[in-house]
Amino acid sequence: MNNPIQALALHPDRLFSSDVNVVEIARKLYAEIKDLPIISPHGHTDPSWFNENKNFGNATDLLIKPDHYVFRMLYSQGIPLTDLGIPQHGLKGNMAQAIDTDPQKVWQIFADNYHLFAGTPSGYWLDSVFSNIFGFTEKLCSQNAQEYYQEITEKLATPEFKPHALMDRFNIEFIATTEGALDDLKHHRAIKDTPMAKRVSTSFRPDDVVDASREDFVENLAKLAEITGEDTNTWQGYLNAIRARRAFFIKEGRATATDHGHPTALTADLSEEDCQQLLATCLSGQSTAAEQELFRGQMLTELAGMSIEDGLVMQIHPGVHRNHNQPIFDVFGRDKGCDIPSQTDFVDALKPLLSKYGNHPKLKVILFTLDETTYSRELAPLAGHYPSLKLGPAWWFNDSPAGMYRFRQQTTETAGFYNTVGFNDDTRAFLSIPARHDVARRVDCRYLAELVCNHQISETEAHTLAYQLTYGLVKKAYKLD
Amino acid sequence: MNNPIQALALHPDRLFSSDVNVVEIARKLYAEIKDLPIISPHGHTDPSWFNENKNFGNATDLLIKPDHYVFRMLYSQGIPLTDLGIPQHGLKGNMAQAIDTDPQKVWQIFADNYHLFAGTPSGYWLDSVFSNIFGFTEKLCSQNAQEYYQEITEKLATPEFKPHALMDRFNIEFIATTEGALDDLKHHRAIKDTPMAKRVSTSFRPDDVVDASREDFVENLAKLAEITGEDTNTWQGYLNAIRARRAFFIKEGRATATDHGHPTALTADLSEEDCQQLLATCLSGQSTAAEQELFRGQMLTELAGMSIEDGLVMQIHPGVHRNHNQPIFDVFGRDKGCDIPSQTDFVDALKPLLSKYGNHPKLKVILFTLDETTYSRELAPLAGHYPSLKLGPAWWFNDSPAGMYRFRQQTTETAGFYNTVGFNDDTRAFLSIPARHDVARRVDCRYLAELVCNHQISETEAHTLAYQLTYGLVKKAYKLD
Amino acid sequence: MNNPIQALALHPDRLFSSDVNVVEIARKLYAEIKDLPIISPHGHTDPSWFNENKNFGNATDLLIKPDHYVFRMLYSQGIPLTDLGIPQHGLKGNMAQAIDTDPQKVWQIFADNYHLFAGTPSGYWLDSVFSNIFGFTEKLCSQNAQEYYQEITEKLATPEFKPHALMDRFNIEFIATTEGALDDLKHHRAIKDTPMAKRVSTSFRPDDVVDASREDFVENLAKLAEITGEDTNTWQGYLNAIRARRAFFIKEGRATATDHGHPTALTADLSEEDCQQLLATCLSGQSTAAEQELFRGQMLTELAGMSIEDGLVMQIHPGVHRNHNQPIFDVFGRDKGCDIPSQTDFVDALKPLLSKYGNHPKLKVILFTLDETTYSRELAPLAGHYPSLKLGPAWWFNDSPAGMYRFRQQTTETAGFYNTVGFNDDTRAFLSIPARHDVARRVDCRYLAELVCNHQISETEAHTLAYQLTYGLVKKAYKLD
Repeated sequence: MNNPIQALALHPDRLFSSDVNVVEIARKLYAEIKDLPIISPHGHTDPSWFNENKNFGNATDLLIKPDHYVFRMLYSQGIPLTDLGIPQHGLKGNMAQAIDTDPQKVWQIFADNYHLFAGTPSGYWLDSVFSNIFGFTEKLCSQNAQEYYQEITEKLATPEFKPHALMDRFNIEFIATTEGALDDLKHHRAIKDTPMAKRVSTSFRPDDVVDASREDFVENLAKLAEITGEDTNTWQGYLNAIRARRAFFIKEGRATATDHGHPTALTADLSEEDCQQLLATCLSGQSTAAEQELFRGQMLTELAGMSIEDGLVMQIHPGVHRNHNQPIFDVFGRDKGCDIPSQTDFVDALKPLLSKYGNHPKLKVILFTLDETTYSRELAPLAGHYPSLKLGPAWWFNDSPAGMYRFRQQTTETAGFYNTVGFNDDTRAFLSIPARHDVARRVDCRYLAELVCNHQISETEAHTLAYQLTYGLVKKAYKLD
Repeated sequence: MNNPIQALALHPDRLFSSDVNVVEIARKLYAEIKDLPIISPHGHTDPSWFNENKNFGNATDLLIKPDHYVFRMLYSQGIPLTDLGIPQHGLKGNMAQAIDTDPQKVWQIFADNYHLFAGTPSGYWLDSVFSNIFGFTEKLCSQNAQEYYQEITEKLATPEFKPHALMDRFNIEFIATTEGALDDLKHHRAIKDTPMAKRVSTSFRPDDVVDASREDFVENLAKLAEITGEDTNTWQGYLNAIRARRAFFIKEGRATATDHGHPTALTADLSEEDCQQLLATCLSGQSTAAEQELFRGQMLTELAGMSIEDGLVMQIHPGVHRNHNQPIFDVFGRDKGCDIPSQTDFVDALKPLLSKYGNHPKLKVILFTLDETTYSRELAPLAGHYPSLKLGPAWWFNDSPAGMYRFRQQTTETAGFYNTVGFNDDTRAFLSIPARHDVARRVDCRYLAELVCNHQISETEAHTLAYQLTYGLVKKAYKLD
Repeated sequence: MNNPIQALALHPDRLFSSDVNVVEIARKLYAEIKDLPIISPHGHTDPSWFNENKNFGNATDLLIKPDHYVFRMLYSQGIPLTDLGIPQHGLKGNMAQAIDTDPQKVWQIFADNYHLFAGTPSGYWLDSVFSNIFGFTEKLCSQNAQEYYQEITEKLATPEFKPHALMDRFNIEFIATTEGALDDLKHHRAIKDTPMAKRVSTSFRPDDVVDASREDFVENLAKLAEITGEDTNTWQGYLNAIRARRAFFIKEGRATATDHGHPTALTADLSEEDCQQLLATCLSGQSTAAEQELFRGQMLTELAGMSIEDGLVMQIHPGVHRNHNQPIFDVFGRDKGCDIPSQTDFVDALKPLLSKYGNHPKLKVILFTLDETTYSRELAPLAGHYPSLKLGPAWWFNDSPAGMYRFRQQTTETAGFYNTVGFNDDTRAFLSIPARHDVARRVDCRYLAELVCNHQISETEAHTLAYQLTYGLVKKAYKLD
């Protein structure tokens, strides 16, 4: 592992193509949009950061332990999660002995294996963070690991690295967090009368009170009843309770959007009687997987109806087999890099919702997918027709240079650019936000430059589109303008 | 919307790549094939045009109202179909009040939103039509919308813009229309003894008498019986009636091909007894969706057998969820941009037909798909083995520069070039035909030029292939030579 | 067909891209790895070649008759298999009259149709063989067909073209053959004490005793019992018999890997009682397709357990509809170019195996697919997480320049490079082995060069990776180092 240390220097033309003609146009397009403010309408940052404005911890605690992109790769090469200090939060993990891992040792393991990230978006983001945010000029490796650790950890303790200072440095005009339906939004309420209120809002993610397959579903509906004063044992009471929480999220959290992470995109349109029955079954704790799926499907349609009432933009993130690795889930819990995408159908699945509400001028639904086969076959044709549908950007595993490029290549011809909604970083890795948005800007400029070089659009059109893809469309889609 | 007006000038190297090496070779290949006559073996033009040779109407009636590619994009951005003058032909639409929309107002809306088409094939075709056919030198926009409308509408009224004159101008050597099994082919019969007879033929599309899910199926079989004198209540009578119509289409419409638009590619090979029973069930009006599907599947196999008898080339276009938007269908009817592709299986679906007839030297089946995942996985392996199978070009949503390019990239290595059949425009938009064929020629030249630049084929081979992909293969595949 | 004869000269920069920047870097990367020894850890060469070291036969017998890539293309264009001398080995073929085809006539047909292979990997490999191995400077065509035939056939009879000499000439450091569970490994045993023993080993492919849908399954289990002395009617006896064969393959055939060709990737984890019952059902000859599928699935899990015990690397090749063309299978038998890929699920299918053994540090499973949609959606996420999983290279129909390139593009960002295992040629076409490995090396250099030109990796990293992808990873993955 003691290879010569490599220089770390981000090339100004990175991701612009190898083709000099494309690079030349992409450079011009990028120059005009690179300094536009960041709009981050969907993500998983911690609202306490924006309220409390405390310094982050050490390098390992900030950059490795919470980043499942990073530790999943290390785990895939046989490094135990316990060696990386990943806490044992799972059902069987609670009974396990506490792990106390030296953060510097974890950092060394990470550095020793940094070559694994070559060609991956994580590697790209990390290099960007190290270079742009911390000013390193050598690439991370075994030899310089501890210098890196010290330098990062020291800087993180300075005032310049507090969340508010970083928001300004990163030029973040707006960022949305995501909270569950039962959340009290205490941090969002706390900043209500501060300048942060204009820059930080929540999103309403009601999976915890919609997904009857969760072990805490019955308990969650009891809490929902308690918070709202509604009887969540009746269908109308349950819906009203959700309406009440949406109103609370709008008023106290300045939410403009909801988010729904479902195993599939199934929707349903049942009679009220059937809904009442299905709710009762789910509350009985005796529901089958098919009944839980139908319940979630019915709720997507109900939530679309509520979006028409209250104006919240609806985001649907379907198609993930969560916690695929059962032994890891048992010991370490959720979000440990074990979520695997699966085939996703949109055409039949969304039909009940779309038949009911798809032509309503007030409905705005943003669709995401991890199944790239649906880009050209299903999503672009759907978004290129239904006025209520827009396409979210390349998501999660596809939030990468090649992934974003495929998204544009496979959606633009049928859906155009104006049925897309700019970029989402969808991250809890705060320091990586500028790099992630920058990747999207660069890839979009590359794609546009190629269309210019192929004489499919003019350079003038490309400039307009670069602005729209970076700033205009996202503000419009999420009702931020 | 009052931006500066942009120039409209089609670049001679458009779609040839940004890479100068590729462009140089592509230019040479294209120079030799660009003026080859157009062979349009599958499409939806109106046969009355070729018989009556009347002038087309105004700009809106010709270029917007019949083009669901165009109005689906406008609708996706919230513009009501009624504002675009789309007539209400659906079940509930018959009861709605008549819409009388000013065509100039519709044109203005279209022009105001012309930016939506940036990067789409519709935008490309429209610019080509405006530039090449009407001679415009400014890009369509809000400011010049009415000039455009007047200029186009005036030109459409001149003798140079009658169908026959345009056929000559477009260098259309041959064009096939598509008619249903019950059609009387009056326009095709009328031109029987004119020079047009060599240039225009029909194709036999029996979906109306094969698809028992249609509301008019029973009625259609009654008409079929009446026209042919066969008893369509018996399986053999029904098959003979279809045979009779095929013979009529060959004799009176000079058909060389059939076309089948089915929800899936399912085929079946049932006993005669089961077929008789299934026909009876379908005629009873009590058939289930599964029985209707099986009936269509059985008929694909029967139709393949008939193709062996009478030599008609069989085209199968499967995998579309038609009229996905129920409220739009109810009011506006079919073909309103609401058809959405869905996952399509060919491997298991075609097996019954192929087991029975797939090795027969007289069978020729051309397969199309909207599910691009089948290109490399199913279609290229099937066409690279079965002598009866050939691959139709990139279809519908994929009839686009990137779509065609993916088709070549994903089929050539396994199926080669000689198991493909040149280009189909598949359109009712007559004026766009030259542009559509030109896109195919340019993309093929680009693809071939890349193989030359990668030293995978020689320039000599590329010239031969460019000719074959443009002219040779289509004439052979559709038995036009 | 009497076109001017074309020159045959392999360009030194072939497959490196049309882009001069990419070519320049690719050249440098390739220069350093092009002469690395060939490691061929999975393929279908005949072990007798390495033991007996006899000369090969004539050009047709070596290059056409055994190569289903070649004759499937000819068949797809209507050339009967009997005209190509393909023997009738199928069930109905045994009763057919013997075919005695003149090999020179077959060669002429092949040459007359050589244009069909333009743009295909077969065409590329054949040109490489003709140029590099036989020294031809004219491209094969109708006119020079018989000169080609004579020249090749004469050279094949010389000492320089015996298998051992070719192994040295091809710089094959290691090659694995594949044998069924009942094989006596006589050729592998025969070379045990020769220098070939270090260079040639077998792989254990137990499909014949695992796939209960085979007509010879019951008979095979009887043979298995006889060979091992175990009672294969009992579940434990059956498993022990397989264990014994694995030990035999390790000891006598120096096997380091197993291989499993299954219709799907299904795995199962049943109780021992259920396993015993399922075995009995399968042995009764009365098992349904679903029971046979479950049996194969259970066995994949059992075989994974055995791999943990004995260290054999497990290769899974799922997702092929074998012998799709029933009439061809009946007359000509297996492996006649009639195998068609089909949709393949990995996420749900592998879960039982992975839940049981997926985190075990001693398990190594290499996954292959013909369904490219699973690269980014399923396989890269799985291999980027589970320590037991690695991704095999682009397989079979995708073992081609564009196929390999898509593999890298769609797997690298999520799985990285280090969860892949270098190249497999998977071939019985011995002479094509250098060309196949060379294609992989060139495409990998191209891919790496593009990342360098896009400033995603440094040139130093690219050099390291080129070495790993060519030589380092394959030796590690197959435990050859």
